[in-house]
Amino acid sequence: MSVEFKGFALTDPAAWNELSLYSYQPKTFLDEDVELAITHCGVCGSDVHSLTQGWGNTRLPLVVGHEIVGNVTRVGAKVTEFKVGDRVGIGAQIGSCMQCRRCQTGNENYCLKLIDTYVRVFPGHQFRGRRLTDVRQNDVYPDGVVTQGGYSTAIRAHERFVFKIPDAIESKDAASMFCAGLTVFSPLKANGAGPGKKVGVIGIGGLGHYAVLFAKALGAEVYAFTHSLSKLEDAKKMGADHVISTHDEDFYKPYQGELDLIISTIDVFRPDRPLKVYLSMLFVHGKFINVGLPDNDNPLPPMHAFDLQPNGAFIGGSHIGSKTEIMLTRSLARRVQCSTSHCLTRR
Amino acid sequence: MSVEFKGFALTDPAAWNELSLYSYQPKTFLDEDVELAITHCGVCGSDVHSLTQGWGNTRLPLVVGHEIVGNVTRVGAKVTEFKVGDRVGIGAQIGSCMQCRRCQTGNENYCLKLIDTYVRVFPGHQFRGRRLTDVRQNDVYPDGVVTQGGYSTAIRAHERFVFKIPDAIESKDAASMFCAGLTVFSPLKANGAGPGKKVGVIGIGGLGHYAVLFAKALGAEVYAFTHSLSKLEDAKKMGADHVISTHDEDFYKPYQGELDLIISTIDVFRPDRPLKVYLSMLFVHGKFINVGLPDNDNPLPPMHAFDLQPNGAFIGGSHIGSKTEIMLTRSLARRVQCSTSHCLTRR
Repeated sequence: MSVEFKGFALTDPAAWNELSLYSYQPKTFLDEDVELAITHCGVCGSDVHSLTQGWGNTRLPLVVGHEIVGNVTRVGAKVTEFKVGDRVGIGAQIGSCMQCRRCQTGNENYCLKLIDTYVRVFPGHQFRGRRLTDVRQNDVYPDGVVTQGGYSTAIRAHERFVFKIPDAIESKDAASMFCAGLTVFSPLKANGAGPGKKVGVIGIGGLGHYAVLFAKALGAEVYAFTHSLSKLEDAKKMGADHVISTHDEDFYKPYQGELDLIISTIDVFRPDRPLKVYLSMLFVHGKFINVGLPDNDNPLPPMHAFDLQPNGAFIGGSHIGSKTEIMLTRSLARRVQCSTSHCLTRR
Repeated sequence: MSVEFKGFALTDPAAWNELSLYSYQPKTFLDEDVELAITHCGVCGSDVHSLTQGWGNTRLPLVVGHEIVGNVTRVGAKVTEFKVGDRVGIGAQIGSCMQCRRCQTGNENYCLKLIDTYVRVFPGHQFRGRRLTDVRQNDVYPDGVVTQGGYSTAIRAHERFVFKIPDAIESKDAASMFCAGLTVFSPLKANGAGPGKKVGVIGIGGLGHYAVLFAKALGAEVYAFTHSLSKLEDAKKMGADHVISTHDEDFYKPYQGELDLIISTIDVFRPDRPLKVYLSMLFVHGKFINVGLPDNDNPLPPMHAFDLQPNGAFIGGSHIGSKTEIMLTRSLARRVQCSTSHCLTRR
């Protein structure tokens, strides 16, 4: 093939935002694979954490980017979903074992052998100096080629990790749905966001604005919490039923025991604001889903067993989403009245 | 009435296990109240935490005990469930507002105005020096009388917080079901322990042995984890399908991603064994329910957001249980083949 695989790569972590052009070998093209010429790639917080080595030391050179849109240039003999010319997307995951219980139950995003779209070593999983086997993430394809992300010309992936984009959604809007959008949609859907449910969204940034849009589109009553006063109005326009400034130290008090679900997108918690402040807003057995992933040296605020007791609350995590979920995201996105591009570009 | 209310009370926290006889005024007897002459009272870890002031300073004198069995000596005019002479139990909760959403939905054990059976100030809920309103627990009855526990002659309670004991269960066995038993039954039931589910129980003590018995009786496959080698055999006799010594530092490895639910009854986590070790044993969206409540100065081990991500796991809390749940516990206890008394008394 004549496609050249090259991207903007990190070579020196001390200068993490000075990327240089780098050519590399793509993975072996297999029968189930799709190759695309990349036209768009979103900028995700993960890219910054990876470039700055905040999540641990990465291999170098490193091409980041996992909110990818492009046009299909080649399909393998066994590909059934795509044809050359299709406009498609790829998110933060590019492979899984396809055979384990997780993969077979539509939870491929939790496969213990998943392959990230670009090299990323899961941090914080050292146990007595050894990595936990359950959180091993490959940064190489089965053929030994190192993964590289979407700030590049082209990428190859098994068709399971490639997604068609509806005509109604522009490429520049679609890109960030494959990580930011999916990352909040998955826990919203999995935890019952819908009519009759009260959903809080903490932090109205890249992930948070999607959470507001999707929670509203799913039919929930949405409470948007932000420390940026300028975003209060935006959140309202995106459909939030209630917008709350977290500048007020008593911000949580009117909502004690009210919410069924909270999606927290913030990366770093204020030291004077422990998790129990947020948990206190949940009704019995309500769930606080944390999707923010700070640097390795920034643990969650300390918590006492008592903090979970007054309402039998849950703190949960979530990891991007499955193909099934991204299909649901797409159809939902078409129903979202305030398009994400409108809300993003007006900032 | 001629009943004298007196119990073994703490008067000096420096000598927490030297209790002295103390007479006190009971709450005003109301139309919905039941009075019982106490015949049995279990010893709960909560009693020790309260006596040692590990959960914060209590009022003094303090009579502890909230695994109470007795015979009804008096019923109010509006009592419908009980008559004089009935053998009944009272657990760790003795009142709630009866009117809030929590009380009206069968979640009275999470009522924001619940009254503990004996004086206990919920610790760890200071926020900038002020207590969070959502975790206020009353230590006085509405008439202003201070609550006192079951190491005493008699107690009064609204009939909602009084439970009949089936003839098949001896009083000495029934007592600890009203706190220890209910505390593990509630999260087992609420989180779907049953046929086809794999349930881990961490710590095979007062709570843990109930968790094994109930999880098995509910039809789950039970994994008992204990650091006490002497309990491995007991756990097996109680019905555990798998018994695992946590002495081996790699104890969790064979169970990576296997369990649907873990009930953790341990009070204190080993510093070299972070929560993610336990979380790694959960399948996708599995739940780790912590029911151990250590002293105020002993928070949960530090946790990073990444720890919840590899399987989208949940960490949850639970607070005793509701009347509905205790009814279910009773019928289940009759089905438990290995009676609790057998397992407790043979130790």
